[in-house]
Amino acid sequence: MNPDLRRERASASFNPELLTHVLDGSPENTRRRREIENLILNDPDFQHEDLNFLTRSQRYEVAVKKSASMVQKIREFGISDPEEITWFKKLHVINFVEPMNLNFSMFIPTLLNQGTTAQQEKWLRPAKELQIIGTYAQTELGHGTHLRGLETTATYDPETQEFILNSPTVTSIKWWPGGLGKTSNHAIVLAQLYTKGKCYGLHAFIVPIREIGTHKPLPGITVGDIGPKFGYDEMDNGYLKMDHYRIPRENMLMKYAQVKPDGTYVKPVSNKLTYGTMVFIRSFLVGEAARCLAKACTIAIRYSAVRHQSEIKPGEPEPQILDFQTQQYKLFPLLATAYAFHFVGAYMKETYHRINEDIGHGDLSELPELHALTAGLKAFTSWTTNTGIEACRMACGGHGYSHCSGLPNIYVTFTPTCTFEGENTVMMLQTARFLMKSYDQVHSGKLVCGMVSYLNDLPSQRIQPQQVAVWPTVVDLDSPDSLAEAYRLRAARLVEIAAKNLQTEVSHRKSKEVAWNLTSVDLVRASEAHCHYVTVKLFSEQVLKIQDKSIQAVLRNLCLLYCLYGISQKAGDFLQESILTDSQVTRVHQRIKELLTVIRPDAVALVDAFDFQDVSLGSVLGRYDGNVYENLFEWAKNSPLNKAEVHESFYKHLKPLQSKL
Amino acid sequence: MNPDLRRERASASFNPELLTHVLDGSPENTRRRREIENLILNDPDFQHEDLNFLTRSQRYEVAVKKSASMVQKIREFGISDPEEITWFKKLHVINFVEPMNLNFSMFIPTLLNQGTTAQQEKWLRPAKELQIIGTYAQTELGHGTHLRGLETTATYDPETQEFILNSPTVTSIKWWPGGLGKTSNHAIVLAQLYTKGKCYGLHAFIVPIREIGTHKPLPGITVGDIGPKFGYDEMDNGYLKMDHYRIPRENMLMKYAQVKPDGTYVKPVSNKLTYGTMVFIRSFLVGEAARCLAKACTIAIRYSAVRHQSEIKPGEPEPQILDFQTQQYKLFPLLATAYAFHFVGAYMKETYHRINEDIGHGDLSELPELHALTAGLKAFTSWTTNTGIEACRMACGGHGYSHCSGLPNIYVTFTPTCTFEGENTVMMLQTARFLMKSYDQVHSGKLVCGMVSYLNDLPSQRIQPQQVAVWPTVVDLDSPDSLAEAYRLRAARLVEIAAKNLQTEVSHRKSKEVAWNLTSVDLVRASEAHCHYVTVKLFSEQVLKIQDKSIQAVLRNLCLLYCLYGISQKAGDFLQESILTDSQVTRVHQRIKELLTVIRPDAVALVDAFDFQDVSLGSVLGRYDGNVYENLFEWAKNSPLNKAEVHESFYKHLKPLQSKL
Repeated sequence: MNPDLRRERASASFNPELLTHVLDGSPENTRRRREIENLILNDPDFQHEDLNFLTRSQRYEVAVKKSASMVQKIREFGISDPEEITWFKKLHVINFVEPMNLNFSMFIPTLLNQGTTAQQEKWLRPAKELQIIGTYAQTELGHGTHLRGLETTATYDPETQEFILNSPTVTSIKWWPGGLGKTSNHAIVLAQLYTKGKCYGLHAFIVPIREIGTHKPLPGITVGDIGPKFGYDEMDNGYLKMDHYRIPRENMLMKYAQVKPDGTYVKPVSNKLTYGTMVFIRSFLVGEAARCLAKACTIAIRYSAVRHQSEIKPGEPEPQILDFQTQQYKLFPLLATAYAFHFVGAYMKETYHRINEDIGHGDLSELPELHALTAGLKAFTSWTTNTGIEACRMACGGHGYSHCSGLPNIYVTFTPTCTFEGENTVMMLQTARFLMKSYDQVHSGKLVCGMVSYLNDLPSQRIQPQQVAVWPTVVDLDSPDSLAEAYRLRAARLVEIAAKNLQTEVSHRKSKEVAWNLTSVDLVRASEAHCHYVTVKLFSEQVLKIQDKSIQAVLRNLCLLYCLYGISQKAGDFLQESILTDSQVTRVHQRIKELLTVIRPDAVALVDAFDFQDVSLGSVLGRYDGNVYENLFEWAKNSPLNKAEVHESFYKHLKPLQSKL
Repeated sequence: MNPDLRRERASASFNPELLTHVLDGSPENTRRRREIENLILNDPDFQHEDLNFLTRSQRYEVAVKKSASMVQKIREFGISDPEEITWFKKLHVINFVEPMNLNFSMFIPTLLNQGTTAQQEKWLRPAKELQIIGTYAQTELGHGTHLRGLETTATYDPETQEFILNSPTVTSIKWWPGGLGKTSNHAIVLAQLYTKGKCYGLHAFIVPIREIGTHKPLPGITVGDIGPKFGYDEMDNGYLKMDHYRIPRENMLMKYAQVKPDGTYVKPVSNKLTYGTMVFIRSFLVGEAARCLAKACTIAIRYSAVRHQSEIKPGEPEPQILDFQTQQYKLFPLLATAYAFHFVGAYMKETYHRINEDIGHGDLSELPELHALTAGLKAFTSWTTNTGIEACRMACGGHGYSHCSGLPNIYVTFTPTCTFEGENTVMMLQTARFLMKSYDQVHSGKLVCGMVSYLNDLPSQRIQPQQVAVWPTVVDLDSPDSLAEAYRLRAARLVEIAAKNLQTEVSHRKSKEVAWNLTSVDLVRASEAHCHYVTVKLFSEQVLKIQDKSIQAVLRNLCLLYCLYGISQKAGDFLQESILTDSQVTRVHQRIKELLTVIRPDAVALVDAFDFQDVSLGSVLGRYDGNVYENLFEWAKNSPLNKAEVHESFYKHLKPLQSKL
């Protein structure tokens, strides 16, 4: 082991193994996770190719191979718990990108949720056996977030009892579905249903797109890869154009809505249940944000402990760059954020399962808040993580820019999270809609519950003539609880400002919609403040629950750092309504610097506790053994550009030129 | 032309051509720039391959070919003015990355600056004729910013009158030089000079690394490509390991320092002149930051004018996404920033040339401030641009993630600017050192001049008992001048806080160096505030100089937006010492929203004025003709993954699996 890392580990104030148990939920979970991970690491069939040295086509091929072998291995090892499958996949296909993923994550679940028993009997087994490889085609070239804008049509023809699927315009071409470009032979297509001359909105259809056996596109189908992207090289995101393409009536998923043979449309009973999948994916993404930020922190902090550079005192040996205050200031707030998001992610998962059970019993009462909260938190955590990964990368200087660090891949794989599964600004505005609704409810005399219950305190304050003075200004900067209270007040204030600005716009203009647009910057700000409060609250509550004193102490410091750093970044909000005083804000800046020094000796142990066994597969800088420079040199030697052919082609271009100069 | 863009252009309040003249410096400059650019665009030899569809080795090969043909074309067309060469290069090699660049940008200039006449006679002509292709090797695997830490040695052997160049450790391997991996046959190597048993620090040596004719590495030389990176695929950044490799004494660049045949070392007269190159490159990078941000804004704003999505009023057609306040809030402050940085870049270039003339006359007095200012502004503008490009990319939703947008390439090519030519945090601390020096000077009764002259006002205020109250609080939020004054006060305050905190740390501890480290977060904050002030000041001054009323009006609004947006982001700083009142900060948020509406009708014309002829080469979304969706579809069809071979390899992996499931 690298001597710097050994020294760092020896001097930690706590046992990282215990913290790993906290993060996994229990020692048993840790044991089982490692057991699953070791199935892969010890499997003689398992090979980790360095994707960085491959072309995109090679990366796709490797991914198909891995995607296929993974399905087989999961069955071979008898892993069936969804969470365990996730652990397995994480290590097996670095970064989670695999062309056949949508068959399992979208095609089969949609079939199960929306298909009739007969439909499931027909398609489920072939899909599980990969005779059918399905994907899910919703987004179009010209349409994303706004589902009602989708143009693809499915027109029922009662004579032949078929639906005619059509892409009437260039903008209606299906665009982006994973695995559509090369891999899939079926797609669940979302299209505007027309029957008896009337449009009934979006419905789902099972559409064969390639011939089983030859894998050739079927007549009437134009399908292909949408081209190279920032990342996701292994994924064949695709396009699909349908030219009056006919499918049997039975291919419409008919568990809820139906079209009878004569073309009569039968309405579904309720639409609310489709909420479920979105909420699930978004709460999963919160955990993913935590994981990716934690991984980036692991690499950057380990490297900062190993890298020696510059001098603090002239003549002395070059210090570890982790000893520079500016480096600590870049990395430790992100480390604290990764922990904060981990606990938020765990809470979201737990809440999702709890509410899902309620829904099973017919109780939908908590769904709107959960829906609003996951939307905002997905945006809040993914934006922060997005910036944070890049900050980690740049904190590694030049080597962060090299693919040897693994950080560019983490970034390009994570960053779509900000725009997919609901574009982040749209997500924030969904949360804002719930906040405005709750505000109005309080305003009309009703109490609200859950995370927005702080709004109940607002109206009483409005009775006071000097609203500004009534905030309890005695925020204790050394208490996470008290800081959570400060965030609560900030959220309440920004929600109120947004609500009042919205009201003002409404009073100036007639249309509610225009007013909403003209207040949307304030609404996003209010949602962010709400999400920030929720994060601080959940983190500080979790810290209190921890039994082990040494673990609690170190997490408490991280929690304090998270809270104080957020305040320093948004000091204006806390000053404006005297939630904090001028001198408190000055003290916040000072206290952050002190906390950096306190956290410094535990920094490496704090990233070790994340227990990423796969860091070493994707990053030379993040390896446990830490012989960074020799590893780097070995890695670089494999660069394809070091092959002779390239050198010859070089002379081909240069020689004719030299003679002319 | 796309009807949306036509409508946008027709409704602009000003003529973008006039603004282009302002940006270029004069109508004549615009004419000449376009003339040069058209040489390329109309050249039948010129081909723009879409680099996104090529492998890295192919990209390198194309770059070598272009790099070579460019040298020939520049001579053919008789372009000799450095600025005109830059215009030419920008269009010829998209993104500026070319393997032979370092021969012209570093090897030849260093030879000219530091070589004797005899040395220039020997190497200059072959380098210009590309018999010699040189690079510049400074950074090592284990050492970057801190030059004294470099380990490569050059030991003089008087018996053979040779220098023995050696890489004693893995960390001493030269790492990163552009063109070193495959292209160069010579390198100027920076190494610690040893003669007569004593080390004299870093000196430059001309080292042959590959045999001319065969291009094979010479015995004792290990050289190659350092492997794939986030970007710069076309560049063969390389490594170089020297094993007791001998070069003649005459290969040390001896214009200043010398080693006599017997090994006697002769000191150079002055070292200050080496400042010059660094200052030049960094001030150039400020202009580059402006250019890259402007390009990203061009793409994102054009796309936002063409893209229709969602609904503001139900039932009405989908609006242009540029009509959403949140979209304007993402893009217009960045547009304003691009303009701000343009004027800062122009000022830096002008100042550099002025001071360079002074230096020619032996006057070095302004050099320290220029050096400090370029360091900080390089960091300030590149950090902001870095985040800004990504914000533009994400503002394009999914399509921003596709390489069709061109935005990922702009980002990965720009982002190294934050860590190379002086890592940004180190740069900020260099500026801080100058600020602290100036502060001390004022403190000891001397006046300072230039951009830091605001520090002269500080000591007088310290006599007042209630310092806080003396700021002139009547900042006029509608006056760029008055806002610049607010930024000036903020900078003065943060410089003072950093100086006092530094003093406090010194008074607690003995060592100045430790105190510096423990204050470095405050020091960076002070530098940022200083750079922000300089940017606001230069922007507001430039706006006043503009003759045309309509142009002045639109730039004035951008300047206001830039100032107010910055205040809203750092509101705490302005509130804390009552530079602005609570209600003024509230008004700032409101005023920003009003300015978005004011700028909206001119947004497309404002990016048209940047006049990027090359946007269309690198970005489908940023093209002038704007038939975005058809262009996208055509582009995607060329994806290499759409070829048959891939499809076959797919079945190869899947078939064996299907039979097992």
